[in-house]
Amino acid sequence: MQDPLLCLSVNSVFHPLTDSSTNMRLKLPIVCFILEIILIILFGVLVEYDHDTDARDFHNMSHHDYENDFYYRYPSFQDVHVMIFIGFGFLMTFLQRYGFSSVGFNFLIAAFSLQWATLMQGFFHGMHGGKIHIGVESMINADFCTGSVLISFGAVLGKTSPIQLLIMAMFEVTLFSVNEYILLSVLGTKDAGGSMTIHTFGAYFGLMVTRVLYRPNLDKSKHRNSSVYHSDLFAMIGTIYLWMFWPSFNSAVTAHGDDQHRTAMNTYYSLAACTMSSYAMSALTAHDGKLDMVHIQNAALAGGVAAGTAGEMMLTPFGSMIVGFLAGIISVLGYKYLTPVLEEKLKIQDTCGVNNLHGMPGILGAIVGAVTAAVATKDVYGEGLHDVFPLVAEGKREASVQGGIQAVSLAVTLGIALIGGLIVGFILKLPVFGAPPDTICFEDNIYWEVSLRSFITNSTSHDQNQNNTHLHSLDVSITSQNQ
Amino acid sequence: MQDPLLCLSVNSVFHPLTDSSTNMRLKLPIVCFILEIILIILFGVLVEYDHDTDARDFHNMSHHDYENDFYYRYPSFQDVHVMIFIGFGFLMTFLQRYGFSSVGFNFLIAAFSLQWATLMQGFFHGMHGGKIHIGVESMINADFCTGSVLISFGAVLGKTSPIQLLIMAMFEVTLFSVNEYILLSVLGTKDAGGSMTIHTFGAYFGLMVTRVLYRPNLDKSKHRNSSVYHSDLFAMIGTIYLWMFWPSFNSAVTAHGDDQHRTAMNTYYSLAACTMSSYAMSALTAHDGKLDMVHIQNAALAGGVAAGTAGEMMLTPFGSMIVGFLAGIISVLGYKYLTPVLEEKLKIQDTCGVNNLHGMPGILGAIVGAVTAAVATKDVYGEGLHDVFPLVAEGKREASVQGGIQAVSLAVTLGIALIGGLIVGFILKLPVFGAPPDTICFEDNIYWEVSLRSFITNSTSHDQNQNNTHLHSLDVSITSQNQ
Amino acid sequence: MQDPLLCLSVNSVFHPLTDSSTNMRLKLPIVCFILEIILIILFGVLVEYDHDTDARDFHNMSHHDYENDFYYRYPSFQDVHVMIFIGFGFLMTFLQRYGFSSVGFNFLIAAFSLQWATLMQGFFHGMHGGKIHIGVESMINADFCTGSVLISFGAVLGKTSPIQLLIMAMFEVTLFSVNEYILLSVLGTKDAGGSMTIHTFGAYFGLMVTRVLYRPNLDKSKHRNSSVYHSDLFAMIGTIYLWMFWPSFNSAVTAHGDDQHRTAMNTYYSLAACTMSSYAMSALTAHDGKLDMVHIQNAALAGGVAAGTAGEMMLTPFGSMIVGFLAGIISVLGYKYLTPVLEEKLKIQDTCGVNNLHGMPGILGAIVGAVTAAVATKDVYGEGLHDVFPLVAEGKREASVQGGIQAVSLAVTLGIALIGGLIVGFILKLPVFGAPPDTICFEDNIYWEVSLRSFITNSTSHDQNQNNTHLHSLDVSITSQNQ
Repeated sequence: MQDPLLCLSVNSVFHPLTDSSTNMRLKLPIVCFILEIILIILFGVLVEYDHDTDARDFHNMSHHDYENDFYYRYPSFQDVHVMIFIGFGFLMTFLQRYGFSSVGFNFLIAAFSLQWATLMQGFFHGMHGGKIHIGVESMINADFCTGSVLISFGAVLGKTSPIQLLIMAMFEVTLFSVNEYILLSVLGTKDAGGSMTIHTFGAYFGLMVTRVLYRPNLDKSKHRNSSVYHSDLFAMIGTIYLWMFWPSFNSAVTAHGDDQHRTAMNTYYSLAACTMSSYAMSALTAHDGKLDMVHIQNAALAGGVAAGTAGEMMLTPFGSMIVGFLAGIISVLGYKYLTPVLEEKLKIQDTCGVNNLHGMPGILGAIVGAVTAAVATKDVYGEGLHDVFPLVAEGKREASVQGGIQAVSLAVTLGIALIGGLIVGFILKLPVFGAPPDTICFEDNIYWEVSLRSFITNSTSHDQNQNNTHLHSLDVSITSQNQ
Repeated sequence: MQDPLLCLSVNSVFHPLTDSSTNMRLKLPIVCFILEIILIILFGVLVEYDHDTDARDFHNMSHHDYENDFYYRYPSFQDVHVMIFIGFGFLMTFLQRYGFSSVGFNFLIAAFSLQWATLMQGFFHGMHGGKIHIGVESMINADFCTGSVLISFGAVLGKTSPIQLLIMAMFEVTLFSVNEYILLSVLGTKDAGGSMTIHTFGAYFGLMVTRVLYRPNLDKSKHRNSSVYHSDLFAMIGTIYLWMFWPSFNSAVTAHGDDQHRTAMNTYYSLAACTMSSYAMSALTAHDGKLDMVHIQNAALAGGVAAGTAGEMMLTPFGSMIVGFLAGIISVLGYKYLTPVLEEKLKIQDTCGVNNLHGMPGILGAIVGAVTAAVATKDVYGEGLHDVFPLVAEGKREASVQGGIQAVSLAVTLGIALIGGLIVGFILKLPVFGAPPDTICFEDNIYWEVSLRSFITNSTSHDQNQNNTHLHSLDVSITSQNQ
Repeated sequence: MQDPLLCLSVNSVFHPLTDSSTNMRLKLPIVCFILEIILIILFGVLVEYDHDTDARDFHNMSHHDYENDFYYRYPSFQDVHVMIFIGFGFLMTFLQRYGFSSVGFNFLIAAFSLQWATLMQGFFHGMHGGKIHIGVESMINADFCTGSVLISFGAVLGKTSPIQLLIMAMFEVTLFSVNEYILLSVLGTKDAGGSMTIHTFGAYFGLMVTRVLYRPNLDKSKHRNSSVYHSDLFAMIGTIYLWMFWPSFNSAVTAHGDDQHRTAMNTYYSLAACTMSSYAMSALTAHDGKLDMVHIQNAALAGGVAAGTAGEMMLTPFGSMIVGFLAGIISVLGYKYLTPVLEEKLKIQDTCGVNNLHGMPGILGAIVGAVTAAVATKDVYGEGLHDVFPLVAEGKREASVQGGIQAVSLAVTLGIALIGGLIVGFILKLPVFGAPPDTICFEDNIYWEVSLRSFITNSTSHDQNQNNTHLHSLDVSITSQNQ
C-alpha cells in the first residue's frame, strides 16, 4: 500500500461520492430517530398487553397457565420470525457485492415494519376501549405484514437507499393493513397463509414501485447484478429456511386444533411437489440441461405461496401436491421467459423475480382458495366448518358465494397493490432520499464500510476484458465515473 | 475473454461434456415428472387425513383443540426437518466445488423421499380401510426415512448424477420401510431414534452402493475432493444444526411425557461428552496436534447416533455420557485409520465417511440399546415400563428376550442394508443414468450453471495442468504491488 | 511445490511453531479426557432424572402426559441452544482467519460448560437427598451459564489456546454458579433473562481476564484482527439468530403463562427499537455516513441484553422500546469511542467489544430492572404479583426494598466478576497452557489443519507491510508449475 498511485486510486475507489446525495450520515439517523420516537410515543398512548400477556388480567380468571396462547402460537411465531429475518435476508444475498445490504437492510426495514404494523393492524383489527391489545398473535401478524414489505424489497433490491426502503415500508405497511382489513374483516375472506394479503400484495406493490423507479441505464451496473459461488450458497440458507418453515407460516394464525395441523401438512406436501417440478423445469429450460441456482433458490418455494389460502381448507394432500407441482412449473417458466420480457417491454426491473416467486404463485393460490371454498360442504368439514368458513357454517353465506368473495378479494388486492405502488413509487423518486446512481447499483460499498481486502478477495477477476493492469482495471470498474 | 487461447481453455474447462451422457436436459425432467405424477396419483387413491388433521373427524369427538397431537409433535418435527434439509445439506458442502450439488441434490432427493416414504411407511404401518392416514407423526417418520437416504448420499457424494440419486432413493425408501416394518412391527424392537433403522441401515446401504460403484481412477478428481476455508465454515452450519437438534430427533416419536423428555436429555449429554472426546482424539491423532475439521464436523455428532436406540430407556445421564464419549473416540479413529483402509483394501470410496459417523456409532447404539433393554426392570421403570417396553410390561416377553431381539434386529438391518445396497448399486451402474466421468467428480459444473467468475474466485488453483495465460493474469491481480 | 525455496517459505508461513508450546497433541487430549472422566464420575455419583424425566416417578402420580414440563420449556430450550452454538459461534466468525476457532472453540467450551454447569448449578440450587435432579429447566440453566462463558470468550477471542479456554470455563462456571446462587437464592433477586447473572457477569469477568492477559505487542497480529467480506456474512448468521431467539432466551425460565408470554413480547419490541437506534448511530458516527458491520452485528442485540431483568415485569411494550432504544445508542457509542480508550488507557484488549454488547447494556438492564421492581404494585400486577415478585406479594418485602436488592445484586455481580476474572486471568498466564505468540494471534492455523489453498483464496493480501517475497511466494504456490 505504499504505492502512492495505488493509494490514490484506492481512496477514490472506496469512498465514492462521499459528499453526494447518497451520504447517509445525517439523513439515515434523522429518519430512524424520528420514526422510532413516533413509534414509542404511539405505543405509549395506544398499546396495552392483551389478556394473555397482562399479569393482572391473566390471573383474574381461573384457568391453567398452560392454556395461555403462548404455548400454541409461539413455536409457529419463531418459525415465521426465522423466515422473515434469515429466510428473506439470506435469500437476497445471492448478489456478489450486495450481501451486507441484503441481510442488513432486510434487518432494518423488518425491525421498523413490525413495530409500525403492530399499530396499523391493531388500529384496523379493532381497538379495545381506545387501546390496541397485543400478544403472540399480533406479533405473528406483524411479522406477516413485514414479510409483504420484504417481498417488495426483493423487486427493488440493489437500486434503493435505506431511506427509500424505510419510506416504502411506512406506506406499504399502512396499505397492507387497509387491504387486510377489507379482506378479512369486511369481506370475510379466508387467507390464513396470505397468498393474497401477503404475497400477491407485496409482489405487485413492489413491481409497480420498481416500474416507477425504472432505470434506463441500469446495465451500467450489470456486471454486479449476478452471483458468485459463495453468495449462492448463502442464498441457499435463506431458501432452505423459507422452505422448511413455510408449513409454520401458513398455519401460524389458523384456528387451533386440526386446522393448524392440516394447514402445516398441506403446505409440506405442496412444497415437496413444487421442488420436484422446479428441478425438472430448470433442467428442461436450460440449453445444456444444467440446473440454474436462481430457479432452485426461488421456484422451489412457490408451492408454499400457492398453498397460502387453501392450505387450511380440506384441500387434501394430493390436491396440495397438484397445487405445488403447478406452482413450480409456473415459477420457473416465469424466471426463464417472463422476467426478461417484463424488463424489456414493460420496463419492470425485478431484481429477485418476485413476480415469479410471489406474484403468479400468489394469484394461483388465490384461485385455488376460491375454488376450494366454493366446493366446501358440511359433509366434508363436519363441525369443523365453523373453524374454516364460519359464515357458511352459520348459514349466512353459501359456499359458492364464499368462493366468489375469495375471487373478488384477489381483484381488490391487486388494485390496492398496483395503485399504492404507483403512488409510493413516485414519492420514492424524490432525490432527497439518496438513491444510488445507475453506475453503482447492486453495490454494498455505497452504504457500508467494506474493506479493500474484501473486494480483492471476492472479485479478483470480475471484469473480463482486461490486460495485465488487472487490479487497476478493477478499481476502474468500481468507480466507473472516474474514467 | 477476447484472448482466443484463453477462451479455448475456459471452454474446455467450464463446459465439459455438454453433449455427453451427463446432460440432464431430458432425463432429469422425465424422471422428476414421472415420479411426481405417480406420487400424486397414489396419494389421490390411497392417502387421507388422519383423525387429528381431518376437519370432520377431529370435531366429531369432545376434546379440546389443545389436545391435538400437533402441539406435542410439531416443534420436534420442525427440528428434525431442519436437520434433514439444513443439517445434512450443509454438512456436505465441505467440498470446495460441490456446494450447489451437496445442498441442492440433498434438497431434491429429500423432497422426493419424504413423499415416497409417506406411502411406503403408510403401507407397512397399517392401512385404515385401504387408506393411509397421515398427520404430524407420519411426517416425522417420512423425514426419518429421508434421513437414511441422505446418509447413503454421503457415501456416494460427488460421484453420482441426480438421476442415480433419485433411483437410489426410490429403492432405499422401499427397503427402509421393509426393514422398519420387520423391526418395529414384527419383532417389537425399540429404536425411536433409529440407531439401527436410520443410521446403520443408511450407512451400510450406502457403503455397499459405493462399493459396487467403485471407481479405480477416482484419483483423477482428487484435487477437488477436499475443502477450502469457507466451504468448511458452511459445513459447520450443518454440523452445529445436527448437533443442536439431535435431542429432538431422538425424542420425536417416543411416547409422550417423561419418555420424550428423557430421550432429549440423554441425547443432550451424550452429544456433549462426544464433543469432548472428538476434540481430544482429533488432536491426539494429528502429528502436530492440530485439530482436523473433518473430525469436528462429523465425529462430534456420533453421540447422537449412538443414543438413538437407548435414548428413550432409563440409560441415566451418566450412561449417556459414556456412550457419547466412546462414540466420539470410535468415530475419530475410524476417520483417521479405517477410512483409508476401506478405500485401499475393500475399494469402498466413502466420501463423507458415513461409516464413521453413522455406521459404527449406529452399531454401538444398537448394542447399547440391546444391553439396556436386557437389564430393564419394573423396579426402575415403574408404570413407565408400558411406554418403553410394552411387551415386557404386559408379561409377554422377558427383558432379556427383548435384549436378544434388539441384537437380532441389528443383524437383520445389516443384512437388508448390505444385500439391498448390492442390488441397487448394480442398478445404478446403468450408463443411462448419467454418472460423471472419473475426471470430473466432486464438481458442480457438470450439473449446475456456475459462472466463470465463481470458479476463479473460489478455486484459484483448481486445475494444475493449465496453460499459463489464464492463471498468470490472476496472479497479477493478487500481487498488485509486484507490478 | 518442488521449489525448495518455496517449500521453505511455505513452511515458515503455514506451519509456524509446530514444535513449540502451542502444540496441542498431548495437552488438549489430556485436559479433555481428564475433565470428561471427572464429569462422568460426578454425574454417576450425583445426578438423577427429575420427576418429569424419570419413568417411575412421572407415572407414579395421576397426571396427563401433556402436563410434562417438556412441552412448555423445550421449544424455548431449543431456541436458547441455537443461540449458544450458532448464535455465539457464528457471531465470532467475523475475523478473516479465525472462523474455525470461533465456531470450533465455541463448540468445545460450550459442550464442556453445559455439563459442568449442570453439576455446579445443581449443587447450589438445592440437592434432593444428596442428588442433583435434572430436566429441561436445568438444561436451559446450563445453557445460560454456558452463554456467560462464551461472552468472556468474546473478550479474549484470538488470543487464547483451547486449553486456556477450558480452564477459564471451569472456573467461570463455578463462579457464575456462586453468584447466581447469591442473587437468586440468598437475595431473592429477579433476573430471568440474566442481564446481571449472564451478561454483566460474563462481560466483566472476560474483560478482567483479557486485562490480565494484556499483550503489549498485539499489533503484530493487527492485520488479522479484522474481517473480510464473507466472514462478515457468516457473522451475520450469528447476529440474526441471537436477535430472533432472544425473546425465547429471556422468557425461557420465567413462570409459566402470562409471564413467559409477556417476557418474550417485551424483548421482541426492545430488540426492534434497538435495531433502529443502532443503524442510526452507526451512520451518524461514521465520517462518511456509511454503516459499520461491527455495529450492526453487535449493537442491534443490546436491546435483548437490556431487557434481561425487567422483561418479565410489567415493563409495558413502550417501556421496552425505550430501553432497547437507549441500549442501541450506548452500544454503538461504546464501540466507536470507548473500546479504543479501554485498549489504550486501561490495556483492555476486548476483541469482540463485549463491554459494549453485554457489559454496559447488562448494567442498563440491571438498573431498569431495579427501577421497575421498585415501582411494582398489586394494582398493576394483580394476582400475577406472586409469579414476578413472590416476596413482595407475600408481604415479606416492600417493592422499594426489592428494587434496592436488585441494585445491590448488580454490585455483587460486578464484584465477583472482576475479582474472579483477576484471579483466573493470572492462572491462565501459566505458559503451559500454550497461548499463541503475539505474532500469530487471530489465526486458525496454529490449532487447526488449514489447507494451503484456503489461505490463498481467503486472504490474498493479508499482510500489508511485508516485502515482496512473501506475497510472491504465495503466487508461486498458486502456480507452482509456472516456476
